[in-house]
Amino acid sequence: MPDDEFQRIARIKQRFASASQDVSLGIGDDAALLRALHGQIALSVDASVENVHFCRDFARLDVIGERAFSAAISDLAAMAAVPKAALIALGLPRELQDYELDELILGIARGAERYAAPVVGGNLSQASELSITTTVVGEVQGRALTRSGARPGDRIFVTGTLGSAALGLCLLKAGVSARGPSFVERWQNPSARIQAGLALSELASAAIDVSDGALQDLTHICEASAVGAEIRASALPLDPGYCELARAMGLDPLALALAGGEDYELLYTVPANAKACGPGTCIGEITERTGEVVVLDAAGTPMAAPLHGYRHFAG
Amino acid sequence: MPDDEFQRIARIKQRFASASQDVSLGIGDDAALLRALHGQIALSVDASVENVHFCRDFARLDVIGERAFSAAISDLAAMAAVPKAALIALGLPRELQDYELDELILGIARGAERYAAPVVGGNLSQASELSITTTVVGEVQGRALTRSGARPGDRIFVTGTLGSAALGLCLLKAGVSARGPSFVERWQNPSARIQAGLALSELASAAIDVSDGALQDLTHICEASAVGAEIRASALPLDPGYCELARAMGLDPLALALAGGEDYELLYTVPANAKACGPGTCIGEITERTGEVVVLDAAGTPMAAPLHGYRHFAG
Repeated sequence: MPDDEFQRIARIKQRFASASQDVSLGIGDDAALLRALHGQIALSVDASVENVHFCRDFARLDVIGERAFSAAISDLAAMAAVPKAALIALGLPRELQDYELDELILGIARGAERYAAPVVGGNLSQASELSITTTVVGEVQGRALTRSGARPGDRIFVTGTLGSAALGLCLLKAGVSARGPSFVERWQNPSARIQAGLALSELASAAIDVSDGALQDLTHICEASAVGAEIRASALPLDPGYCELARAMGLDPLALALAGGEDYELLYTVPANAKACGPGTCIGEITERTGEVVVLDAAGTPMAAPLHGYRHFAG
Repeated sequence: MPDDEFQRIARIKQRFASASQDVSLGIGDDAALLRALHGQIALSVDASVENVHFCRDFARLDVIGERAFSAAISDLAAMAAVPKAALIALGLPRELQDYELDELILGIARGAERYAAPVVGGNLSQASELSITTTVVGEVQGRALTRSGARPGDRIFVTGTLGSAALGLCLLKAGVSARGPSFVERWQNPSARIQAGLALSELASAAIDVSDGALQDLTHICEASAVGAEIRASALPLDPGYCELARAMGLDPLALALAGGEDYELLYTVPANAKACGPGTCIGEITERTGEVVVLDAAGTPMAAPLHGYRHFAG
C-alpha cells in the first residue's frame, strides 16, 4: 500500500471517529468489533459506480456519497432492521484529488449520522473509476420483512410517491435540472424508509424497497412468494406537477412511475383482513396467478406492458 | 438492472445455497439475516482489483476468487474471530463471459466452504475492470486480538514463513513460475490463519496479519501500541530454497521477507513472562522507543532500512 494511502486512511479515520454504544472497536484494526446484538443481524452490500450508477455532472461528490449510503441503508429498511454500522470500500481513480476524496467522505459521514450507522471499517483501492461499495449491518429486533410472505388477496401498498427520482435523473441527463429542482433532489438525496419499515414489521406480509422500479420490484415479491399481482394505474401515488413535467420532457409518466426505479420507497403487502395498513398508498392486490404482474387502466382493463415501453430508456 | 443480471444472480444464488445454522436467510432478499451471535461481531472489508491486486495472467479466475476470500478472512484470523458469513460485491467488465464469472464464483464458493463462511449476500455491478470486494463477518467468543496491546519487553512472533508469497509473485511477473511452483502456490493460494488466531486469543498482547509486509505491519502494531520494535534478521523464518531462488532472481531475500507482503501469516506479540508462545517463530522484541522499528544484523547492529531498498520494486 503506498504511503499516501495510509495518510488518507488516517484522515478518514478521524472523520469517522463517532461514538456508538454498539461499537466496541471502530476503524483502524484488522476488523471492527460490535457488541453482541440481541436480535437477528441483517447484512447487505450495495455498490455505486461512476458512469454506471452516477455521473459527477449529476451531483457534487458529497451528495453522491450520502446518496450511496442511503441506497445501501434502504435494504435494511425493507427488512425492518435498525441500522447499526457500515463498512465503506472505495475504488479511487489515480486522478482523484485529496479534496475530492474529502468531499466524498463528508457525504458518507453525513449518511452515517443521518441513519445512526457509524462507519466502522473500510478499504481504499486504486481503480479505473470511482466506486463506493457500502456494506450495512442492522439488527432485526422483531419480525423481519421478507419478500416471500405475500398471499393472494393481500393488498399492495407503496410509501411516498413513485417516478419522481427517475424524472429528476431525466432532468439531470437532459441538462435541464432547473426545471424541476424538487425532482432532482428526489434522485440526489433519497431517504431510506427506516421508520416505515419498523412500523410495518408486525403488519406487512412482504416488503421490498423500490430500487429497480416498482413493477420490477413487485415482480421480485411475486416470484419469492409464488403469487401474481394486479395494480391500478390510477392509484399510483404521484407528486404534484410530476405528470405535466414528465410529458413536457417527452416521457410517459406512467411508464416512468412503474419502471423508473431509485425511489427507495417501500413496496409492501398487507393481509386482506388486517385492521391497519401502514403509511403507504394502496395500489393493487396480490393474485393467485403466479408470476403474472398486471397493470389495469381506469376501466379495469389490463394495459399493454408499460414496462417494456420504458426499457429502451432505462437501458 | 439488465435482465441478464437477474439470471446471473439466480445462478450465483444456486451456487451459494449452503446451509449454516447461523444463517436464517441467505441470498435473495433485501438483506441476509444471521441468528443473533453471543460474542462480539467482527467486521472487515477487502477489495481485490484487476491489475492492482492481481493479473489474470497470474492465476485462473477460480484461484483469484479463492485468494480474495482468504485475504478477507485473514483479517478475522488476526482478531481471533470465527468466520460466520461473507458478502461479495463484484465489479464486472462488460466483456467478462458467463463461463468466466462461473469460474470466479467457483473459487469464491471454495473459499466460503474452506472457512465455513457462507456467502449470504452480494452485489453485481458493471465496471471497467474486474473487482471482488469481500465483506466478512465473524464472531469473537473470547478476547479479541487487537493491534494496540503490545508492551515494551513483549516478544514478537510470526507464524509460518515470510517472503515466499512475494517471491512467488516475482516469479509470476517474470514469467518463470515453473522455477518455484511452491512459491507461486504461496501467492496464489494463501491460508488465513484462523486456528492460530484462536489459539492466540488469551495469549497474545497484540496481533496483525501480514498483508502489507512484515515490517510495515509491525509498524502498524507499534503505532497502535505506542511502542517500538527490534527484530533480528537472522531469526526470520524462511522456506527452504527461498534465499537461493530470490538471489537467482536478483532480489534481496531479506528485503523481500520484510517488505514483500501478502503472506497472510499472523504477526503477534506475547508478554515476556508468558509461559506459552503460540505457533510462531520469535523474531524480536518490543521496545520503548515509540514508532522506531529496527532490524538488527547477526552482530546485533541496526541495518540500513531494507524496506526502502525494496520500495521501488513493490511500488
